[in-house]
Amino acid sequence: MRYELYYWASIQGRGEFVRLALEEAAAAYVDVARTKGGEECMQALLANEGLACPPFAPPFLKAGNRLIGQTANILFFLGERHDLAPKRDAGRLWTHQLQLTLADFIDEVHDTHHPIASSLYYEDQRREAKRRAADFVASRVPKFFGYFERVLASNPSGPAHLVGARVTYADLSLFQVVAGMQYAFPNAMARIARQTPKVSALHARVAARPRIAAYLASTRRLPFNQQDLFRHYAELDR
Amino acid sequence: MRYELYYWASIQGRGEFVRLALEEAAAAYVDVARTKGGEECMQALLANEGLACPPFAPPFLKAGNRLIGQTANILFFLGERHDLAPKRDAGRLWTHQLQLTLADFIDEVHDTHHPIASSLYYEDQRREAKRRAADFVASRVPKFFGYFERVLASNPSGPAHLVGARVTYADLSLFQVVAGMQYAFPNAMARIARQTPKVSALHARVAARPRIAAYLASTRRLPFNQQDLFRHYAELDR
Repeated sequence: MRYELYYWASIQGRGEFVRLALEEAAAAYVDVARTKGGEECMQALLANEGLACPPFAPPFLKAGNRLIGQTANILFFLGERHDLAPKRDAGRLWTHQLQLTLADFIDEVHDTHHPIASSLYYEDQRREAKRRAADFVASRVPKFFGYFERVLASNPSGPAHLVGARVTYADLSLFQVVAGMQYAFPNAMARIARQTPKVSALHARVAARPRIAAYLASTRRLPFNQQDLFRHYAELDR
Repeated sequence: MRYELYYWASIQGRGEFVRLALEEAAAAYVDVARTKGGEECMQALLANEGLACPPFAPPFLKAGNRLIGQTANILFFLGERHDLAPKRDAGRLWTHQLQLTLADFIDEVHDTHHPIASSLYYEDQRREAKRRAADFVASRVPKFFGYFERVLASNPSGPAHLVGARVTYADLSLFQVVAGMQYAFPNAMARIARQTPKVSALHARVAARPRIAAYLASTRRLPFNQQDLFRHYAELDR
């Protein structure tokens, strides 16, 4: 069976967390909007009134006759199938808990450049973005990164992974968050990286995993860009 | 075993989604910050550096020797244990997917009154709140409520529940979202209720469930208030 991933064709966005898991798992998948079907195909599926389990928004994953939405939920599903999460219930839920905390952080990242409305241009909410980003950099980034540093330090199996002694989708997601923050907030990240060395080391370790390294070097990895979740505006990163 | 729920003592907030599930399940639980321990007890646990699986923020649930954080994750756990979610994997993930979509909506509700920073007073971000709430009411509320109306209409088992033919924690959570919105945005909700009759009917049906009705009439149910997630500011609900 080949998975079908449905996500916007020109951004990493939330779909990237799913792409990283599929790549690390060496799973067969089609990135539908970027290949055969285009975004129209994704929009048509979203609008299909005949679905018993309609997704609210991309990303969503077609797995056989199942259609699964919500990034963290897709990862829960893939983690179980592709050994990217512990087998035991407690470890599975702990991995998922970390993913949900990363999802909260990602929402906050998005709202630094869109604090008023996703439907408005950045330029139309620039003043508010400056205020929101200032608090984000001063308070929220240290809180979240400090938390993940603490989780790594508290892992009974050692600080090489967030959960247990093997890679999970939560590690891949934390890698992506660090990579995105380095692009969007290079100044803030230079400071925070010194305070959270275990998080930085995890980022480097994931980037060096053979399948992830091959993916990052391929054309399948879209470059960060200014229409994406992580955006670099120098005025938000003093 | 008696569960221990850790959440702020004076608000419904995100903890309320867990309270509703525990109440519907008739599970034995202590609402720690409201009873024996106070919020200090919760803060102490949050700050405990010895935890292998530290939660990021309340709510979190102690179940035997497990400590489980993130609202949707706690509900996933309780749903399985207390028959508040389907037994089969596909139904369990679909219920969770709906919960995660409700969680996204709740984040947006919060940000209508705190678009800049949680750490600032409403009064210090009132101008931005007006802009954000206007978009929320005009675009986001219809989109989310329209989605849940569609999910109810698409349920092969009928529109009485979001998933299958029995109550799940997603139904309880949608009830809470409607209740909160009726408090916070009564004008917007009067309009939207007419357009989403199945959602309104679900809200009424959940409120009438014997255990939920008993809970809502008890002192265990905190009243909505202006420090909570759902807040009523007339200027945001024209």
